[in-house]
Amino acid sequence: MIKKFTFGTPTETEAVICREGIVEPGEKVPYFSVASSGGDQDKSHVLTYGMGEQDIVYGLGENIRGINKRGWLYESNCTDDPKHTESKHSLYAAHNFFLVDGTERFGVFVDAPQKTVFDVGYSDRDRLTVTVDEGGFVLYIVEGESLRHIVKEFRHAIGRSYIPPKWAMGYGQSRWGYKTAEEIRQVVKKHRDNQVPLDSVYMDIDYMERYKDFTVDEEKFPDFPGFVREMKDQKIHLVPIIDAGVKIEEGYDVYEEGVEKGYFCKKEDGREFVGGVWPGRVHFPDMLHEEARQWFGKKYKILIDQGIDGFWNDMNEPALFYGEDHLKEVFDQLKEYQTKELDIDTFFGMKALILGIANNPEDYKTFYHNYRGERIRHDKVHNLYGYYMTRAAGEEFEKMEPDKRLLLFSRASYIGMHRYGGIWMGDNCSWWSHILMNLQMLPGLNMCGFLYTGADLGGFGADTTEDLMLRWLGLGIFTPLMRNHSARGTRSQEFYRFGHLEDFRNIIGLRYGLLPYLYSEFVKSAMTDDMMFLPLAFVYPGDETAAVTEDQLMVGESMMIAPVYKQNARGRYVYLPEDMKLYRLRSTDSMDSQILTAGHHYVKAELNEVLIFLRPDHVVPFGKGGCNVEEAESSSLRLLHFVRTKAVYDWYHDDGFTRDVDLEKGITRITVEAHGTIASAGAGRCQWSLI
Amino acid sequence: MIKKFTFGTPTETEAVICREGIVEPGEKVPYFSVASSGGDQDKSHVLTYGMGEQDIVYGLGENIRGINKRGWLYESNCTDDPKHTESKHSLYAAHNFFLVDGTERFGVFVDAPQKTVFDVGYSDRDRLTVTVDEGGFVLYIVEGESLRHIVKEFRHAIGRSYIPPKWAMGYGQSRWGYKTAEEIRQVVKKHRDNQVPLDSVYMDIDYMERYKDFTVDEEKFPDFPGFVREMKDQKIHLVPIIDAGVKIEEGYDVYEEGVEKGYFCKKEDGREFVGGVWPGRVHFPDMLHEEARQWFGKKYKILIDQGIDGFWNDMNEPALFYGEDHLKEVFDQLKEYQTKELDIDTFFGMKALILGIANNPEDYKTFYHNYRGERIRHDKVHNLYGYYMTRAAGEEFEKMEPDKRLLLFSRASYIGMHRYGGIWMGDNCSWWSHILMNLQMLPGLNMCGFLYTGADLGGFGADTTEDLMLRWLGLGIFTPLMRNHSARGTRSQEFYRFGHLEDFRNIIGLRYGLLPYLYSEFVKSAMTDDMMFLPLAFVYPGDETAAVTEDQLMVGESMMIAPVYKQNARGRYVYLPEDMKLYRLRSTDSMDSQILTAGHHYVKAELNEVLIFLRPDHVVPFGKGGCNVEEAESSSLRLLHFVRTKAVYDWYHDDGFTRDVDLEKGITRITVEAHGTIASAGAGRCQWSLI
Repeated sequence: MIKKFTFGTPTETEAVICREGIVEPGEKVPYFSVASSGGDQDKSHVLTYGMGEQDIVYGLGENIRGINKRGWLYESNCTDDPKHTESKHSLYAAHNFFLVDGTERFGVFVDAPQKTVFDVGYSDRDRLTVTVDEGGFVLYIVEGESLRHIVKEFRHAIGRSYIPPKWAMGYGQSRWGYKTAEEIRQVVKKHRDNQVPLDSVYMDIDYMERYKDFTVDEEKFPDFPGFVREMKDQKIHLVPIIDAGVKIEEGYDVYEEGVEKGYFCKKEDGREFVGGVWPGRVHFPDMLHEEARQWFGKKYKILIDQGIDGFWNDMNEPALFYGEDHLKEVFDQLKEYQTKELDIDTFFGMKALILGIANNPEDYKTFYHNYRGERIRHDKVHNLYGYYMTRAAGEEFEKMEPDKRLLLFSRASYIGMHRYGGIWMGDNCSWWSHILMNLQMLPGLNMCGFLYTGADLGGFGADTTEDLMLRWLGLGIFTPLMRNHSARGTRSQEFYRFGHLEDFRNIIGLRYGLLPYLYSEFVKSAMTDDMMFLPLAFVYPGDETAAVTEDQLMVGESMMIAPVYKQNARGRYVYLPEDMKLYRLRSTDSMDSQILTAGHHYVKAELNEVLIFLRPDHVVPFGKGGCNVEEAESSSLRLLHFVRTKAVYDWYHDDGFTRDVDLEKGITRITVEAHGTIASAGAGRCQWSLI
Repeated sequence: MIKKFTFGTPTETEAVICREGIVEPGEKVPYFSVASSGGDQDKSHVLTYGMGEQDIVYGLGENIRGINKRGWLYESNCTDDPKHTESKHSLYAAHNFFLVDGTERFGVFVDAPQKTVFDVGYSDRDRLTVTVDEGGFVLYIVEGESLRHIVKEFRHAIGRSYIPPKWAMGYGQSRWGYKTAEEIRQVVKKHRDNQVPLDSVYMDIDYMERYKDFTVDEEKFPDFPGFVREMKDQKIHLVPIIDAGVKIEEGYDVYEEGVEKGYFCKKEDGREFVGGVWPGRVHFPDMLHEEARQWFGKKYKILIDQGIDGFWNDMNEPALFYGEDHLKEVFDQLKEYQTKELDIDTFFGMKALILGIANNPEDYKTFYHNYRGERIRHDKVHNLYGYYMTRAAGEEFEKMEPDKRLLLFSRASYIGMHRYGGIWMGDNCSWWSHILMNLQMLPGLNMCGFLYTGADLGGFGADTTEDLMLRWLGLGIFTPLMRNHSARGTRSQEFYRFGHLEDFRNIIGLRYGLLPYLYSEFVKSAMTDDMMFLPLAFVYPGDETAAVTEDQLMVGESMMIAPVYKQNARGRYVYLPEDMKLYRLRSTDSMDSQILTAGHHYVKAELNEVLIFLRPDHVVPFGKGGCNVEEAESSSLRLLHFVRTKAVYDWYHDDGFTRDVDLEKGITRITVEAHGTIASAGAGRCQWSLI
């Protein structure tokens, strides 16, 4: 049951698209007390809920801290901030859905494109408040018989999650720094020569001609279509980045067309807003304007026509190194500092001035969108920009390639965008704590519809280490988006930069062994509005210890994971809500297993080992892997198994690219009896063996 | 056995002061291969050791990451950097002592006042290298029958650790932001009115007249000696901060005397170096110059004469907001940027230029010291500056107050400084991860001689939360320096800012209950060159699990601690190397206990509970607490106990301020039999009861 409440005159976000089952009761909002302040037109609102001492709050998608969000203040205010420390409030996304579980149980979606603050017991340990900035919004209260059921109801309302092509669930290698075709060729060669699986190489900003969207630098990539073909022949997909800002440059067609047609965001005075990003001065396409959006979306065809079948959209918070007008003011103020003695006040004043150039909230108030026929100031709809940029691409892809899935994911997002593409978790760091953050973010993202997701494995910023890389891969092999990515100036982190090649080959290889299961669980989750990564409490309600377990997850219906995320650890504690079978995997062919009883355990796990825990009467389809998804597809199929009476698993499988997914048609039902008999029925009818 | 090896012409640091038992074998350096590069005079050296797969490396004092330092690169290069993330290499100190335990077991002290880099399996998982910057150094290799024995040998060589007055082991309240006597009065009143214990209030930079050392702002603190007395009457010690830089201001006696006598650091051209810190333009006293050091040390008398009996030395890395000459260059370069279009290169270039103003390594190469009769460039002895500033105070204190201990601690330090004062762990953040960092740093600091230490409880930078505050206090009640400190602009974190006053009163109260034990263990550790905080492996050698336990510590001879450091946790896992008795303390009068068998346990611990684990046949003297140390001293004495056959504890106790400590004289031997009989003999002969 979803109840809808409208405050003021909200801006339609098109997050909720299925109205079936949503009622507008006209009664008082349940659970919350509501207060408002400000003028008639521009009220800001505060919702307050008194939490019970043991209440747990889940959700809020992409943000820092635990699975239980209690004890911090979160802001939905898409921000390009590459230092995800514990004291931040916003990352790149605005995911305004959360669940309260305890004294009462309900879900809340605050559909507001403007800045929204969630104080989850930060100011007062026992109080949850939601403060929505000036302007209207829609509040949805979701009720259901269980946490999982509430999520499914909400997910149904916001529409089916994006499903990528299967190759995009292979391993991808990336680095901000690959500059030439030759360099990429070498990266691929080293993977192939060493039998380390690889399906894609990401092209960060350097492939473009001076950072101009939809261009390719012809000097560094002579005959780009030929290079794309050459890579495809080796089963490698190239995935270029697309930035939000369009370079201001005479003769650059995207810029000139955009100006001519009035598709860029404009200031109060009607002139285009000028911001600074990678290429220097840019204009921002008005992604919220339907016509402009279609125009921008069609531009991707330039690269698709050259053989490209995947993209990542970046800098679409939108990130602003500077707003041109503000920058001029800063330079003027700096002149004044030059004549002052810099003491405590003046020195920190100057520092703040400089650090305040980037992503300045005031800049976001100086330009406008043309959205659904109305002129609206950017800050009022700030959180929609990345969503609509990705929608621009996604909608056009559907027209260009009606039969084929393309890879698409974004950095900034709002709920609704999950229908068009995935997201990656942004510019994390090579910190051990970010392995845990990666894990803890997964269920919250799933609740908000984002299934195709993952973090930059090994860490984007800062210098990685070999052990960090291996342990992070030990989690990354389970995330749908599995990409090793790092920043310019940091230590290189391709597997061949380290001493223990074998460990990398084997752990990355495990991903390909697990692919039959992961892909099946992914598609089933998308098609049934379910979560693929779940907190233990979602599967074991009423289990008090499961409720506070913050470093383990259920992955699909058959397994639990408990990655090691501490340096120099040689094992870890694991809580089992029920008896489980531990598989300690060293490669697709080397493993041991043991049955553990429900309760607390300390289990060993060396750097070259990954642990998975099978639930009773469950199986996990497990292949032999291969050097890429296509090869892994053809490997023989086995079953990891923990069968006490009987296990039934509906295995979904398809060609991996057809856009229309028919769940029923793709299911093979596998039945395993306690004594070891395996039967399969349905689509696949493959040969299975127990392992 | 300590072996000494000399490379080049080292600068004497006066870290090692007891030569007894140190041999100069003249043979090849054991364990390491040695390489050098550079000219005859200015060689830099690299020592390399091949680590066994399971080797553990301990030590390096104040630095980030685990108790086991393996897997990262650490730099000894005292730096004022307030963001202690996982990717940093240096904090404020240079503590060049470490231990290797595994294939072989030995200790290493690299006595080098210049920058020194410890690559502990960072570049290569299996290799440890030490790189000493240009210039000579002395290498000490310490061998012994156990890790603890090696530490004791080393500690003996570097001299007895500083012992503070007992009141300095009470709870201290601090904030960068207390501006007036009246404000401090209110802080004290709120503690006293609510029966929350308190022994000291720290005075951060705002008490000074425009940040001038040894001045007090007379407007904000009228009749300062009267205020100090008023506070003393309430059993509160005021502890002012002293900064390294001396404000350049006509008429300011410290500045004028320093210039006149030539006591400030000078540039190549003989003029005083000008840096920028809190007061604006400053000169740095040449703390390495004996005469200047004595002069600076005597200045503390200005405040001592007004009743002050404790100090903290700050900004003595030395921190540099800017070097004046470099700042001018930056402003010139900024002009050029103003005329450029800011793209990826120019924008980040400009940002780097601005961020490079502070603590710039080039600035440290532009001024000189007069050290032991020689002119020496600052960067060659950079790591000694904080040490010698604190030594300046410590040596003069001994002359001014030969019978009485004063409180003294510092931010920057080098081994050797531990004889003159303690250190606090610098400007940490209100991050959960920093509770663990606080814990993990303790044994490393103890190895290097720093016993009087602690972190800013609740976190200095960033905004704290009530639960973080409580959990951090749950560790902080064990650290000798127990201070709640926070930065200007962050959320206030005095106990009365939060809702659950009772919890704060009780947990802080526990510190005062534990004081009889903690003070006894502290003084015994100092007098016997032992550690007070030990990794489990130091007490349980050969126990493989103890060796990888990174979040528990032994505190003194009787107990183990295992603080909760995760948000929303309601308990934690604990490893017991032997049977132990768990006391779950809620206040000095409310607790429960249970005996746990050796092995792994999950134990519950709510926000208002602190766990301690007693070893078999051990007792912990435990008082009833009080509102300050003096009151706690007079409380009745009880024993937490876990006696299976017989426990013998040597309880040290004294008046808490006499400078000369006579260990033997202060010992009361307490004997507890399994059936409950208690006998005590020696100094105290007090009445004890079991609890």
